Amino acid sequence: MITSEGNAQIKELLKLQKSARERRKEKTFVVEGMKLVEEAYSVGKLKKGYVSESVLRNEEKRVKQMSGRLPFEVVSDSVFQAMAETVTPQGILGLAEMPEYSLSEILQEEKKRFLLLDDLRDPGNLGTIMRTAEGAGMSAVILSKESVDLFNPKVVRATMGSVLRVPFCYVESLPDVINRLKNENIKVYGCMMEGSVRYDEPDYSNGAGIVIGNEANGISKEVRKHLSAAVRIPMAGKLESLNDAVAAAILMYEFTRRDIFYR
Amino acid sequence: MITSEGNAQIKELLKLQKSARERRKEKTFVVEGMKLVEEAYSVGKLKKGYVSESVLRNEEKRVKQMSGRLPFEVVSDSVFQAMAETVTPQGILGLAEMPEYSLSEILQEEKKRFLLLDDLRDPGNLGTIMRTAEGAGMSAVILSKESVDLFNPKVVRATMGSVLRVPFCYVESLPDVINRLKNENIKVYGCMMEGSVRYDEPDYSNGAGIVIGNEANGISKEVRKHLSAAVRIPMAGKLESLNDAVAAAILMYEFTRRDIFYR
Repeated sequence: MITSEGNAQIKELLKLQKSARERRKEKTFVVEGMKLVEEAYSVGKLKKGYVSESVLRNEEKRVKQMSGRLPFEVVSDSVFQAMAETVTPQGILGLAEMPEYSLSEILQEEKKRFLLLDDLRDPGNLGTIMRTAEGAGMSAVILSKESVDLFNPKVVRATMGSVLRVPFCYVESLPDVINRLKNENIKVYGCMMEGSVRYDEPDYSNGAGIVIGNEANGISKEVRKHLSAAVRIPMAGKLESLNDAVAAAILMYEFTRRDIFYR
Repeated sequence: MITSEGNAQIKELLKLQKSARERRKEKTFVVEGMKLVEEAYSVGKLKKGYVSESVLRNEEKRVKQMSGRLPFEVVSDSVFQAMAETVTPQGILGLAEMPEYSLSEILQEEKKRFLLLDDLRDPGNLGTIMRTAEGAGMSAVILSKESVDLFNPKVVRATMGSVLRVPFCYVESLPDVINRLKNENIKVYGCMMEGSVRYDEPDYSNGAGIVIGNEANGISKEVRKHLSAAVRIPMAGKLESLNDAVAAAILMYEFTRRDIFYR
C-alpha cells in the first residue's frame, strides 16, 4: 500500500493532473471516479488503477474485475485525497491512454457532421460540448491547437465519458480543414451573432461543419474568411451572446433533428 | 477609503456573498464586475457600489456616472481582493436589490412560455439556464424551493445579467403550479430520458411549461404524476443524459424556433 505522498508514482500522477504538456508527452491522462475508470477499462484504454483503502473495502468486486488484468495500487485514504482533483474524491482513479485519431480517418466518417472549435478556452464548456456531441451523434470534434486541453481533469469530468468515445483531433490550421471540407462539397457554417442566415435555414442533410468561436472574441478573423456562411441563433432580450456550449448544442441538435434516422 | 477588512460594511458584504439566507433576509445580493454593476444601475436596482483605488483611477468617468446618484465607497486594492468572489476581481462590485415577481403576475404573461426547474442544484447550470431563457424569450423561470439560490455569486455571474431581466419565482409546490397551468389549458412537459414523445413533436404555439429535473435524479416522482407528457431528447452513443443546461436550451429553443415572430 502507498502511504506517502512522496511516492514516485504519486508524484508522476500529480504531474499528469496538472500539466497538459506532460499528458501529451506521455499520451496519458487521469480518469477519476468509478464510472470513468470502468469506462476506460471497458474500451481498453485503462493502463493502471489507484484505489483508496476504504473504497477497496466497499467495492472489492468491481475493483477485482479490473485488477485481475491490470496493475492496481492501493493507497491510503489521505494519500488518495492528495492525488484527486475533485473536492470530494470517489476513491478510485486511473491512468488511461489517450485515444488518438487522424484527421484523415475523421474526415472519412460517413455522416460528415463536424464540430469545429476555434480557440475554445473554458474547460467546462469543452467537456459539455463533447458530451452533447456524443448525444447529437456528431462525427467528430475538431479543435484549433490553441483550444483548451481535452484531457484537462475538469474537461474529462464534464464529458461524462464522451472523451473516450467521440472522435476528435487538434489541428494546426482550422482554415485548412475548412477548405478541405469545402473541397468535398461539405459546407462549413460559423455561429455568429451577426450571421446572415438563421441557424435552422441551411440544409444540413449531406453533412456540414459548424464552427464555434472563442468565449470572449468569437470566431477569429482568419477563420471567418473561409466560412460558407455565418449562421445566427436569434436572441430575444438584451443578451450579448449565448454560452458557447449552449450555442453548440442548439446547432448540433438542429443538425440531427431533421435526420430521418433520428428517433 | 476603506483600508481594513474588519470594516463593518465589508463584513456585511461578505455575509451576503456567502449566505443565501442573509441575501433573502436583506433582499439584497452582490453584483461583481463593471458590466453587471452598470446593468444593475441602469434597471434601478443598484443600492451601493464599491470600487478599488486602481479601478477608480482607470474608470473614473464610468464610476462617477453612478456615484453621482448613489453611495460609492473606495476600498484599497487588498481589501477589494478579500471582498470579491472571483479569483481575478474586476475591482468593482455593488449591492443590488433583488428583483421580485409574484407568481400571479408571471402566469399572466402573454406568451406563456414557462421553464420549471425541479430541484436544480448546480449554480453554473442555473446561471446558464437563465441566460438562455432570456435569449429564447421565455416568459419566466419557476423554481422549486429546494433549487439552488439564484443570487449565489456563481449563478449571478453565469447569468451575464439575465438575473436582472428574466422574471422568476421560487414556489412551495411545483405540482400546484403545474395544475394551475393545466387549468388554463397550458400543457406542461417534463424532459425525461424515457419520455414517450420526441421533444420536437408537441405543438408549443399556445405556450407550454417545460420541466427540467435535478442533475442526479431527474424529475421527482411527485412532479412526474402531474405532467401532460414526458418529452425526450434523443441521444446517440452511450450517454446516460445530457447536461441539464443543454437539455433546457434545446427545449427552450424548440419552443421559439417555430414561432412566426421569431427572427
